[in-house]
Amino acid sequence: MKIGVFDSGVGGLTVLRALLARIPGAEYLYLGDTARLPYGSKSQATIARYAVSSSQFLIDQGCEFLVIACNTASALALNEINEAAAPYNIPVLGVIAPGAAAAAANSLTRDAMVIATSATVQSHAYAAACEARQLRAIEKACPLLVPLVEEGWIDHPVTAEVVRIYLSELREAAIEADSVPDTLVLGCTHYPLLRGVFENAVRKLWPDNPLVVIDSAEATAREVAAHINAVSRPEDAAIPPRSCACQFYATDSVTKFRELGTRFLGHPIDRVQLVDLGG
Amino acid sequence: MKIGVFDSGVGGLTVLRALLARIPGAEYLYLGDTARLPYGSKSQATIARYAVSSSQFLIDQGCEFLVIACNTASALALNEINEAAAPYNIPVLGVIAPGAAAAAANSLTRDAMVIATSATVQSHAYAAACEARQLRAIEKACPLLVPLVEEGWIDHPVTAEVVRIYLSELREAAIEADSVPDTLVLGCTHYPLLRGVFENAVRKLWPDNPLVVIDSAEATAREVAAHINAVSRPEDAAIPPRSCACQFYATDSVTKFRELGTRFLGHPIDRVQLVDLGG
Repeated sequence: MKIGVFDSGVGGLTVLRALLARIPGAEYLYLGDTARLPYGSKSQATIARYAVSSSQFLIDQGCEFLVIACNTASALALNEINEAAAPYNIPVLGVIAPGAAAAAANSLTRDAMVIATSATVQSHAYAAACEARQLRAIEKACPLLVPLVEEGWIDHPVTAEVVRIYLSELREAAIEADSVPDTLVLGCTHYPLLRGVFENAVRKLWPDNPLVVIDSAEATAREVAAHINAVSRPEDAAIPPRSCACQFYATDSVTKFRELGTRFLGHPIDRVQLVDLGG
Repeated sequence: MKIGVFDSGVGGLTVLRALLARIPGAEYLYLGDTARLPYGSKSQATIARYAVSSSQFLIDQGCEFLVIACNTASALALNEINEAAAPYNIPVLGVIAPGAAAAAANSLTRDAMVIATSATVQSHAYAAACEARQLRAIEKACPLLVPLVEEGWIDHPVTAEVVRIYLSELREAAIEADSVPDTLVLGCTHYPLLRGVFENAVRKLWPDNPLVVIDSAEATAREVAAHINAVSRPEDAAIPPRSCACQFYATDSVTKFRELGTRFLGHPIDRVQLVDLGG
């Protein structure tokens, strides 16, 4: 089984990492559209155009399953990607639905909070996916978190302060909306690297009832595994895990992809191939 | 005289603002390549490709002079832009040379510091331009400042702290290099919006000898004015200034360009035309 994983950059490697842990026997093709990132601050039309050309590239490489690891593309371009994949009968899974499902499974109060990029929040894709699961979601854009992660300021007082400010504003919004959230969804693939920072802030801001932090990467990998098992032959389960059968592609500097990507994937990336998708 | 001003986004509007103050009688076409921004974190090949197609668009609109208001494109793609403009005999001016010239004119110690995006710093274009003027420059990438400005955190304690951290690191580098800087060049068009923050930090970090902060937008406008006067008829000087004869173009959301751009230009932007440069 050849699984294509697409993201605007290296953030989706947190999803690939979860996939490798859960489905080690598959072959992976990962594309980071680094020449055109970030998607999170751009318009729907532009994001859809970029996401479709990126998905088409993975289809052309023979992928049999497409994972849209980019929250922004999942929120704003899933219909367009599905249309592009339909003629080839290739299933497409974004990260929003699995993330919302995991939040719905966790929440007792039926109130959740979602933090994401500006474009993802403006689409209200998480709110809609949560509402479909009888969960009310309050969303907030946190545009400084991706640059802070990419600067490597993970365990840094400035990042802790920015997270505190964003979550305080979110708490105010929840109080105003009479919401009692017990779940915080990380709606951007960069955010899992700040999981410790979020958990600290959550303990301080909600001391009586700390929110559970949900990472959609893990939820997405679970859903892909369920789908693969359903369509693949039972003996697939017996195939011994190969050591990371991954091919990496990027539309900009492969050196930068390797260096930054290693932090997200959690182990070294040897070879990245440069591809030109135009633009 | 039809002057084309190009930037990857809205930052170059600080250069247009300086141009309007100095050459109010000209007609301006401003292009923000917002669908493909930011340039500052991308590779030379990608930046050159984007900058040339953007410049070609302005040439096709009949511009007689090209101002590359983007520091990153000036640092990494000026040769390629010059090649594209040469067949039309269109002069091209980037922001690096004027900024370096202004720093060289100011410095008594012959030591300067330059802050900019990652790509601009990695190109060492400022260091080379300063060296050509017998000025030694120590450069530093400050990738968090553009996102902070775009988030609107101008007069904000987090921004003050990030600036303090970056400039402290720069001071350490200067001490190690036996450099005694008296000039700080803002090598990114977003930074003039933080001029007050830089001046505060500089007073605290160099209490005995505060650095002079140089903004290349003003230096660039001065140089364009000198060039225009040299090639235009003398009676041009008598033409009364028109009220902002500007046409704005963007490759992504015109609404976002209008909203964010107004802050950089210093007055409202009425109409922005969406253009598709491919990609």
